[in-house]
Amino acid sequence: MNTSGSESERPTLGVGMVGYAFMGAAHSQGWRTAGRVFDLPLDPVMTAVCGRDPDAVRAAARRLGWAAAETDWRALIAREDVQLVDICTPGGSHAEIAVAALEAGKHVLCEKPLANTVEEAEAMAQAARRARAHGRLAMVGFNYRRVPALALARRMVQDGGLGALRHVRVAYLQDWLTDPGFPLTWRLRREEAGSGALGDLGSHAVDIAQYLAGEPLAGVSALTETFVRERPLPARDAAGLSGTGGAGRGEVTVDDAALFTGRFASGALASFEATRFATGRKNALTVELNGERGSLAFDLERLNELAFHDHTGPAVSAGFRRILVTEPEHPYLEGWWPPGHGLGYEHTFVHQARDLLCAVAAGEQPRPSFDDGLQVQRVLAAVEESAAGNSVYVPVPA
Amino acid sequence: MNTSGSESERPTLGVGMVGYAFMGAAHSQGWRTAGRVFDLPLDPVMTAVCGRDPDAVRAAARRLGWAAAETDWRALIAREDVQLVDICTPGGSHAEIAVAALEAGKHVLCEKPLANTVEEAEAMAQAARRARAHGRLAMVGFNYRRVPALALARRMVQDGGLGALRHVRVAYLQDWLTDPGFPLTWRLRREEAGSGALGDLGSHAVDIAQYLAGEPLAGVSALTETFVRERPLPARDAAGLSGTGGAGRGEVTVDDAALFTGRFASGALASFEATRFATGRKNALTVELNGERGSLAFDLERLNELAFHDHTGPAVSAGFRRILVTEPEHPYLEGWWPPGHGLGYEHTFVHQARDLLCAVAAGEQPRPSFDDGLQVQRVLAAVEESAAGNSVYVPVPA
Amino acid sequence: MNTSGSESERPTLGVGMVGYAFMGAAHSQGWRTAGRVFDLPLDPVMTAVCGRDPDAVRAAARRLGWAAAETDWRALIAREDVQLVDICTPGGSHAEIAVAALEAGKHVLCEKPLANTVEEAEAMAQAARRARAHGRLAMVGFNYRRVPALALARRMVQDGGLGALRHVRVAYLQDWLTDPGFPLTWRLRREEAGSGALGDLGSHAVDIAQYLAGEPLAGVSALTETFVRERPLPARDAAGLSGTGGAGRGEVTVDDAALFTGRFASGALASFEATRFATGRKNALTVELNGERGSLAFDLERLNELAFHDHTGPAVSAGFRRILVTEPEHPYLEGWWPPGHGLGYEHTFVHQARDLLCAVAAGEQPRPSFDDGLQVQRVLAAVEESAAGNSVYVPVPA
Amino acid sequence: MNTSGSESERPTLGVGMVGYAFMGAAHSQGWRTAGRVFDLPLDPVMTAVCGRDPDAVRAAARRLGWAAAETDWRALIAREDVQLVDICTPGGSHAEIAVAALEAGKHVLCEKPLANTVEEAEAMAQAARRARAHGRLAMVGFNYRRVPALALARRMVQDGGLGALRHVRVAYLQDWLTDPGFPLTWRLRREEAGSGALGDLGSHAVDIAQYLAGEPLAGVSALTETFVRERPLPARDAAGLSGTGGAGRGEVTVDDAALFTGRFASGALASFEATRFATGRKNALTVELNGERGSLAFDLERLNELAFHDHTGPAVSAGFRRILVTEPEHPYLEGWWPPGHGLGYEHTFVHQARDLLCAVAAGEQPRPSFDDGLQVQRVLAAVEESAAGNSVYVPVPA
Repeated sequence: MNTSGSESERPTLGVGMVGYAFMGAAHSQGWRTAGRVFDLPLDPVMTAVCGRDPDAVRAAARRLGWAAAETDWRALIAREDVQLVDICTPGGSHAEIAVAALEAGKHVLCEKPLANTVEEAEAMAQAARRARAHGRLAMVGFNYRRVPALALARRMVQDGGLGALRHVRVAYLQDWLTDPGFPLTWRLRREEAGSGALGDLGSHAVDIAQYLAGEPLAGVSALTETFVRERPLPARDAAGLSGTGGAGRGEVTVDDAALFTGRFASGALASFEATRFATGRKNALTVELNGERGSLAFDLERLNELAFHDHTGPAVSAGFRRILVTEPEHPYLEGWWPPGHGLGYEHTFVHQARDLLCAVAAGEQPRPSFDDGLQVQRVLAAVEESAAGNSVYVPVPA
Repeated sequence: MNTSGSESERPTLGVGMVGYAFMGAAHSQGWRTAGRVFDLPLDPVMTAVCGRDPDAVRAAARRLGWAAAETDWRALIAREDVQLVDICTPGGSHAEIAVAALEAGKHVLCEKPLANTVEEAEAMAQAARRARAHGRLAMVGFNYRRVPALALARRMVQDGGLGALRHVRVAYLQDWLTDPGFPLTWRLRREEAGSGALGDLGSHAVDIAQYLAGEPLAGVSALTETFVRERPLPARDAAGLSGTGGAGRGEVTVDDAALFTGRFASGALASFEATRFATGRKNALTVELNGERGSLAFDLERLNELAFHDHTGPAVSAGFRRILVTEPEHPYLEGWWPPGHGLGYEHTFVHQARDLLCAVAAGEQPRPSFDDGLQVQRVLAAVEESAAGNSVYVPVPA
Repeated sequence: MNTSGSESERPTLGVGMVGYAFMGAAHSQGWRTAGRVFDLPLDPVMTAVCGRDPDAVRAAARRLGWAAAETDWRALIAREDVQLVDICTPGGSHAEIAVAALEAGKHVLCEKPLANTVEEAEAMAQAARRARAHGRLAMVGFNYRRVPALALARRMVQDGGLGALRHVRVAYLQDWLTDPGFPLTWRLRREEAGSGALGDLGSHAVDIAQYLAGEPLAGVSALTETFVRERPLPARDAAGLSGTGGAGRGEVTVDDAALFTGRFASGALASFEATRFATGRKNALTVELNGERGSLAFDLERLNELAFHDHTGPAVSAGFRRILVTEPEHPYLEGWWPPGHGLGYEHTFVHQARDLLCAVAAGEQPRPSFDDGLQVQRVLAAVEESAAGNSVYVPVPA
Repeated sequence: MNTSGSESERPTLGVGMVGYAFMGAAHSQGWRTAGRVFDLPLDPVMTAVCGRDPDAVRAAARRLGWAAAETDWRALIAREDVQLVDICTPGGSHAEIAVAALEAGKHVLCEKPLANTVEEAEAMAQAARRARAHGRLAMVGFNYRRVPALALARRMVQDGGLGALRHVRVAYLQDWLTDPGFPLTWRLRREEAGSGALGDLGSHAVDIAQYLAGEPLAGVSALTETFVRERPLPARDAAGLSGTGGAGRGEVTVDDAALFTGRFASGALASFEATRFATGRKNALTVELNGERGSLAFDLERLNELAFHDHTGPAVSAGFRRILVTEPEHPYLEGWWPPGHGLGYEHTFVHQARDLLCAVAAGEQPRPSFDDGLQVQRVLAAVEESAAGNSVYVPVPA
């Protein structure tokens, strides 16, 4: 017997990806793996990847497993064999690409933050609403919603396990800018990145806080700071998160750190911190929720664990329990390994691909939607307005 | 041979304590133990304790080991055999007792927060300055400076181990008010407690942040909240931290939680949280400092440990190390047990007693002084002003 | 421009896999991913997978991405487009398949433990030595050597970071047999599994201990136990690690737990524990090494972390540091994500595939070799001999 | 009003202590504090302390608060004002002092291990049984039974929270002998210490294992090792746990480390490790019990915490919870501080004093009794016999 195992009767969906750096590599892992682990209603086909440098994009296609390479994103969008456009570029180009793709009748997955400004985000959300009317769907890539422990946390909050929420506490701490000799890459320039730690890390923090709380922030009060105001210009090949300095120096035009507090309409208080100067913290997205009936705590550096305190039992045996989120009953775990055999960072992209493909097959709006992304953008704008206005409390428009 | 071992040629210092609840019991343990563990220049004598209820104060004297009991603090102060007055009452009575004691020529140890208002604290600080001119000394009981791990942290910061500070992050989380049925004890009434979580927990957070950073806060922006606005009136014997409800209900007139951010003059950012609604957190004073050269982290629920990340070594072997602060070279440890044999909460009061007795013997100003306590009070006032003023940033007067 | 990105000029290596359950799925992930993350000298081609049930193996091929399905392992071995045979079956069939594959001129990767008996393992090691003379290579799949933290630990020991070793302490704790209603799957029958916790978990423990110590065990003393001696017969579809009971009951013929101590020739002591009855421990392979100059500690449930205590520095700042093993300088990390973005369990199979492909391309013996696997088997046999002989110390043949 | 607070109507019990080094200081803290925290039926009076060096014992009496000093333990025993003799000397002198004290009609508290040999322990246990007939009581100081977390663990096991026990795992790891330059103090000489890590640390491990399991060990298999066989002779003032080397070198005549496994009659397996060469582990007495219904874990370096896994609930929310053992419902906590305000090492001696005084007042046998101590001694002897006999399993006499 000899049966071609890779043939499948499932319908396929051609994916075209723009950008192939860190995020592009992570998304590729998601597209490549989702169908090998989960039962998908649609088989993703890694049709083409797009980048400006012909040699580099060809090499990336080969390395990451894309069938073709394009150097113009408009050409990628125009391809008939591409039904979904996956945008992995810096934030400044999201709006233009996403709107064009949606208008060309493609589904869109767009990396976070949705855009660099509220205006761009509004345009994108409107385009998504129009496209939705024609059966085209758009999603923003807040991938941490797909960490099993955080998806479990969401479920526990929704099931009432915490009761009335009192506190939501989210910090996202990294340290890769501690060295003043780190070069001025695109992530440190406002025109490309929109903002600094706020947009890059704070957007994740805000999205996950609202996702877990199940409601939007009502308002915020903020401080931001740029500790190192001038840095060496990057050498030619420096990428977003690494690289070496070249000749000359330039001004850092984004924040290095943002601290903000906020209120939910329900009365819960929130506190946020986003920084790239927390020496020794590498990717510490820490989350804690305290409610009347219990609490949850999470640290992305130990992403297979969720701490849960049940306050309804006897005090004599109460305490934060470390749930190893690797049981078959846990979100996304049905496709993976036996209990205790943990997952890693990139698995969030596998789960994201799965959820998006399921939504597309079902014709249902995937979440977080562009409207969700727009709402996060409004929080970020309120943070910047508060920080510019002596920290005065700024309501977030509904 | 039969030698009276308890005779000592050391000079003595008569101590009179006002208040004998939780803090009084802890201070008693300090006075009783200090000379058994450390070589003291002065032997404290537990002369008299004072409280309003004659039977209760007598029982407390017997239980805690005080030679006499008084029912009027003025009588206590008037005793010739009392040279140091230790004030363990609620904040609303601190100023009157402390000023009177200083004016009567006594040394004073006053529990934190120094007072309920800036005005009271100023009067106390002035009285302390006047008394200092006559050789009488005053200290405020921010006992967490005497946790060995935090004293070690201070030393490491002062020695330059962290370089330029970027972030100071302090939260003090408890959960004993989560239950809306918890009664309205004195700690929930503004006239006695001054404020709620802010004064009780936030004052510790502010003091330790400034102590570790080595500089005062320049300004703050704040949110406060009272989650449960009405509570059962306490049964007759309800104390500060526990008790059962009686008949009737009353209004909670203090904050349940306070969140604030701030700036140090050096440019470092600070974030604070004080709450009694962090379900599952019992006494979680957590501290983190991030500097250019390293970071420190601490949790009072694991008070024998200090985490230190040295950022100056190779990344390949870097990471937060857990220093078990039980080595003879660590602060206060020369008198205690072999490495790994940890201390507890009350040891901070033993260390406080030692440091104060050493300062009195040497005629040197003990720290934190009443001026230090006043400065903390000013930060708390700025927090309340900001919270009342839509979170606008409020500078702290120098 | 439109370039077929998946074409590559690299030479390829056809892989044929026998077995497609848990291990087969994990190996598939390895073969599929290695070339997308690392620069490989050889491109693995997922040529064919083999299993007895035609429908099931076809479905597995489709799911896991193998181009063809075979139902007879001899046919798989006979395929000209298969150059490497990857054996993922229960231990009882390893020897026959591996020897046949090697004799057919194939490279072989064989799951651990190498075999069910020393005799089988010896035959396999001999076959591997003969094949080596003809340029064919064999490796045994002790995949935990490829956890970056453990590879780093090995490097640190070899670099002298621990000095003379005193203690090696390895426990491998799981709990999936706690329930007496768990059925009698193949892993609980001696004829298929060889032994119980000892062979399944203990073999990993022994391999990693010897790998990290850099030397073989000299002898062991052991206790074994079968806590639940009779279990329900499995329903028809019950697999190794899960399943439901069917009708009837049968005898458990393997150990539920094995405890043993041992000595290394260097004088270091070792302690081992392997059990499936450690309630609450899901996949807790914990390792600790204590040496004159330092110590290392690891827990597979937190696989991105390695704890290191440097005993050569001042005691005042010493302590176990938590190295987040996600830096580009760490083993295997050059191909993955930025610092703090952790890996999961299955990444060990990606690394294993990479290392084996590199060895094949270079014509060098990959480790662990079949001789290494044989040596582990000899330790397991000594453990069983000691356990059967009243725990008397049994030397391990060199 | 002026009432002498320290007068009490409670009957008193005169205590005489032999030895005033580390253990003597810790016991003194216990005697001094117990009545200040707990309601005792008997007030201990710190009557006299005994040591050979007149100046040193006088200084110790003054420092530790004993009313008198004696230089001959027989004189101490002869004192009419001493009703309880507390023996804090090295193990070699326990039997002689304890038997004499009991025969003189005194209650006795004897430090662990009970003795250096089974013979001595048997004589002591017999003397205790005879004294019991005359109302005199004897207890051995396995103080870790009085760590609140371990007392809670015992209660949970007895209440059936773990179901049938499968595994008991106890390690006691220290590192103060890692340096080969550490001098040859009494703890390293067989004639004074009886054994090395085995008696000092292993005795604690055995006692706590049996206490928690609620049954004695049935037999053991053991390895022991002396890593550093020769050390510098101590300088004149070197004590047990510290000190500097003097001139000359001598042979270490005790074990540096002992590893043993064992069986309980119930069928549970046990594993033990005692060592002073676990670099970086300062006082790591770690305990884990796995039962059919749940598990418990403890680490003395974090003594206010007990980890508990409840295996009877749904797997989706199961995990080891960290119980902060500081609630008023927890053992010994009624007398101490509010939740989260942790205790330290020496509190075990306060609790030990309380329990012994309560037993004396009630005329009930305190535990651990000398019979309990004898049983531990028999386990230690079986360990040594096994280690000397090629690790063969040695039953422990009932």
